[in-house]
Amino acid sequence: MADPLKDLDLPEPPAPVGAYERGMVHGGIGFLSGQFPLRDGKLVHIGRVGSELTEAEGRQAAEIAALNAIAGIRALLEGDLSCLASLLRVDGYVASAEGFERQPWVLDGASEAFRRMLGDRGRHARAAFAVPCLPLNAPVELVVTFGVSGKRA
Amino acid sequence: MADPLKDLDLPEPPAPVGAYERGMVHGGIGFLSGQFPLRDGKLVHIGRVGSELTEAEGRQAAEIAALNAIAGIRALLEGDLSCLASLLRVDGYVASAEGFERQPWVLDGASEAFRRMLGDRGRHARAAFAVPCLPLNAPVELVVTFGVSGKRA
Amino acid sequence: MADPLKDLDLPEPPAPVGAYERGMVHGGIGFLSGQFPLRDGKLVHIGRVGSELTEAEGRQAAEIAALNAIAGIRALLEGDLSCLASLLRVDGYVASAEGFERQPWVLDGASEAFRRMLGDRGRHARAAFAVPCLPLNAPVELVVTFGVSGKRA
Repeated sequence: MADPLKDLDLPEPPAPVGAYERGMVHGGIGFLSGQFPLRDGKLVHIGRVGSELTEAEGRQAAEIAALNAIAGIRALLEGDLSCLASLLRVDGYVASAEGFERQPWVLDGASEAFRRMLGDRGRHARAAFAVPCLPLNAPVELVVTFGVSGKRA
Repeated sequence: MADPLKDLDLPEPPAPVGAYERGMVHGGIGFLSGQFPLRDGKLVHIGRVGSELTEAEGRQAAEIAALNAIAGIRALLEGDLSCLASLLRVDGYVASAEGFERQPWVLDGASEAFRRMLGDRGRHARAAFAVPCLPLNAPVELVVTFGVSGKRA
Repeated sequence: MADPLKDLDLPEPPAPVGAYERGMVHGGIGFLSGQFPLRDGKLVHIGRVGSELTEAEGRQAAEIAALNAIAGIRALLEGDLSCLASLLRVDGYVASAEGFERQPWVLDGASEAFRRMLGDRGRHARAAFAVPCLPLNAPVELVVTFGVSGKRA
């Protein structure tokens, strides 16, 4: 049976913005570089959730970063998502206005996209953080760790 | 010989607060979701260490989050802590008033609880961070990675 | 052939500043404790990049923290860097003045040092973060995960 993840429609994965790799795999564990809500090389939203951005825009930014993460994992696995055993942990950072505490709701935009796109293999542990700002003035950054099986582990 | 961790007295582990799992295990490595100083579903302390909270209260919050982490690991291992090879790394985030720099002392409340409860298996690497606030306005968040051996690895 | 990493000239690795270990290894994955720009037990630079520190000083701090990380990994592997398969991910935290967004450039100071010192084994995924302050009032903190092969895995 063909793997249901074979023909996933995904964006072009963003390139690293410094002297580092897209990701690394060792011992069956994959480590992806930080992912931002970039589309065609530009941030879809800029600034903090709760001031420059609405909560709904923040949640949309989290979803776009999640799609970039999946695209990045696929590129790292040389186009073959069937080697993805499952996501493991998503550390989600939300650039937050003072007093904004709904980071978990914003990050559910990413978590739900992972489940919708990857099914059971999109399950993950999660940690949520509020930060005053992020590189590029991005509203959301995701750091994804995942399990790899088969010949690419 | 019975495993000394068999009958550890622990709180009910808090449930995830969003669309994610309590934790995941792959390749012998376990990834727990972020842990807060919750007891019976409510934060024991709220706010930043060095302003709303004293250092001692922050340290106590770190200890409670550590107990929740152990309870979460046990639930993830289906009640069987004998599969816990050891903790690996604890990333500790302390919501800190401006100018407060004693995050390591606050987090020692967690580190010492891990050693006291888990013995040698409570040893861990650690990274400490100061943040202006955390989800739920919690004073402390712990992100725990651990090693699993035996049939649940 | 002798391993080229055998005689690397490195500083004395800083000791942990609390109740935790230098690092842990399990299942071929190594977890190092947070690394700061310490030399002879003292921070080389103090404060935030973009206000108390110039960008160039921040970048130099990142490089010094990277050398400490390599020294820490070597100590953890009992002096034998030939067991280092490769770095995996570097989470880089930069204490940043308001409005400062060039964390990736600052952290390239670490990334380039890893590549220069470790060659291909210095390749790594990376995530960059801006924080208002760090423990000890350090300008940079690095959290390094790495792969271990051979008898110490």
